Amino acid sequence: MNLERFHVTYHILGDEDAAVQKAQTICLEQTIELGDELVPDGMIRDHIIGQIEQISPLNDNLKAVTISYLAETTAFDLTQLLNLVFGNTSIKNGIRVEDISLNKTLLKAFTGPRYGISGIRDIVGQYDKPLLCAALKPMGLSASEIAHLAYQFALGGVDIIKDDHGLTNQSFCPYDKRVEACVEAVKKANQETGLKCVYAPNVTASAAKIMDRVYFAKNAGAGALLISPGIVGFDFMLSIAADDQVNLPIISHPSLLGSMVIEKSMGFSHALLLGKIQRIAGADASVFPNYGGRFGFSKDECGSIARACRGIIGDYSAIFPTPGGGMTSDKAADMLEFYGNEVMFLIGGGLYGGSSGITSNVHSFLKLIGR
Amino acid sequence: MNLERFHVTYHILGDEDAAVQKAQTICLEQTIELGDELVPDGMIRDHIIGQIEQISPLNDNLKAVTISYLAETTAFDLTQLLNLVFGNTSIKNGIRVEDISLNKTLLKAFTGPRYGISGIRDIVGQYDKPLLCAALKPMGLSASEIAHLAYQFALGGVDIIKDDHGLTNQSFCPYDKRVEACVEAVKKANQETGLKCVYAPNVTASAAKIMDRVYFAKNAGAGALLISPGIVGFDFMLSIAADDQVNLPIISHPSLLGSMVIEKSMGFSHALLLGKIQRIAGADASVFPNYGGRFGFSKDECGSIARACRGIIGDYSAIFPTPGGGMTSDKAADMLEFYGNEVMFLIGGGLYGGSSGITSNVHSFLKLIGR
Repeated sequence: MNLERFHVTYHILGDEDAAVQKAQTICLEQTIELGDELVPDGMIRDHIIGQIEQISPLNDNLKAVTISYLAETTAFDLTQLLNLVFGNTSIKNGIRVEDISLNKTLLKAFTGPRYGISGIRDIVGQYDKPLLCAALKPMGLSASEIAHLAYQFALGGVDIIKDDHGLTNQSFCPYDKRVEACVEAVKKANQETGLKCVYAPNVTASAAKIMDRVYFAKNAGAGALLISPGIVGFDFMLSIAADDQVNLPIISHPSLLGSMVIEKSMGFSHALLLGKIQRIAGADASVFPNYGGRFGFSKDECGSIARACRGIIGDYSAIFPTPGGGMTSDKAADMLEFYGNEVMFLIGGGLYGGSSGITSNVHSFLKLIGR
Repeated sequence: MNLERFHVTYHILGDEDAAVQKAQTICLEQTIELGDELVPDGMIRDHIIGQIEQISPLNDNLKAVTISYLAETTAFDLTQLLNLVFGNTSIKNGIRVEDISLNKTLLKAFTGPRYGISGIRDIVGQYDKPLLCAALKPMGLSASEIAHLAYQFALGGVDIIKDDHGLTNQSFCPYDKRVEACVEAVKKANQETGLKCVYAPNVTASAAKIMDRVYFAKNAGAGALLISPGIVGFDFMLSIAADDQVNLPIISHPSLLGSMVIEKSMGFSHALLLGKIQRIAGADASVFPNYGGRFGFSKDECGSIARACRGIIGDYSAIFPTPGGGMTSDKAADMLEFYGNEVMFLIGGGLYGGSSGITSNVHSFLKLIGR
């Protein structure tokens, strides 16, 4: 058997003794789920159970503990990787998964992002400056009304136009009709502008329907896909990313993932859940709430997500950090300075409203980011 | 359009003014994701956005707020239901989803549990008294070693023998081999005992593989399935439950769901996430950590889960509350009194160890629960 191991760093509340005790429990809980007295000697004790590799004090009441696991115990499957790292331990307070460091074999097992920043830039034909993503809303409009919005956004020069993540297949705006109408609208605008805007329909749906939605979008000519891995599972996103017949960039939405990240004594770190795991799971852009908007993420947390989206992880492409959530034009300069150019700004409500109309709003915003 | 609405009760931290303000934000955030000034009059303002139906003070700093949503906005899809109820709001602290009350049309849209308590009792041929569920472990054993454990559990009289939730398709214990060997082992034991024990393999896997695993289990003769909806999505569980070609009871494991429940100012209530949503999503038994074990659930929280598993929700069958997690024989009397007879006890490590062997351990435990 291949005895390669990979590493997971947990932040554990408590003094050193308490942290060591909790870490020892994690080593068993996450693998064999038996008390130490029942661990069979030999391979199971020597290799299968987690092993504490390092303990670093962060402060009096917080320790960073790195535990290694046998890569084979993941079955090289993302679902079991997540289960192994945090399945049962997620039910215990005071333990947060700070980072996962995959070994080479695991990195190769997951295909990661298909397009990443450079691939998406090639598709939309925009280099150097930040990209702009808009959201089609509100829920309640018909397919043709939504498509008319898409037309106006595309005419203004938005790079990617995504469904609002609550648009799926409601009776008042059926998926198939919306996708066909939006693809057509964006195509028409592109012919007028000479630009290469793409439309990203929301394919989040029941398990039995997702792939139908994905292939329908592909065949209709959609240029990207939006999905919420917190609802359908990270692996479903990866399955789509890895599908050569789909071959489209994927924008990941953080819906329902909040409880796994907002409380620092539990869940996953912002950088891991909204950055690194997104890349492992095949996202090409990761949407997250920007600091100073209507969600509570700090500037530091947003910065850590952006670094995790763009830093080195094996051979995986860097992906677009995609801050959104209450972004308005008066924040553009600050965000541009903070995130730099390798970013996609998601503006929802901020491009609606005003008296000058959507297309003009987009023009104004693009100027603010140097385009 | 059908204007039926359904109701969601949130627990919101804050005084009445703050709670009302947060509730108004939820009404918009969860539906159209635009500020109030951008809400179009007509259908969207009148029906699509959430409506505050009731506000009840729970204490000075906690309010129960019931918001209604148009059922059509769920697209009658479980993924969009979860997104609508809590998608973006999950990213805000101080708001917890306490309860969801589906209207009749939504209740019918989700098939719910196929077997429930009475269906599982018919399969295993055990009535009146609690059922006993055992877990095959530790990870690291071969398929034949795991099957030998299954044989010993079945011989002792366990009703359902499930894979530990970390067993999937590791090279040292391949899924197909394990399933075939365990089915065979349990069959052999049943022939000796005259009992009707069933084996439940873990079908949690990558999206592209789950249905293959499910059908393999079905064809091999497995009598139930184990799945972790926190990893593959609740809807994947429902899809399996609703599949007439599968037609097997489903045991739901709470892996990775901890962060969504353990902190009371966020996430979902215990009863909702580990009881009601499990039933909506087709589980026939919901595993959760028992009070007083190695997880931190209180007796009250466990009681609320059990009530949610067994109380009336439309026409859905009652399902087995399945407390586990460090259960030992000395707790049996107290648990029996607390949960009553309509329960399945999940005993993991507690049936291993000791000098008398697994089969004898099972015999002893069954006596403790009056069997």
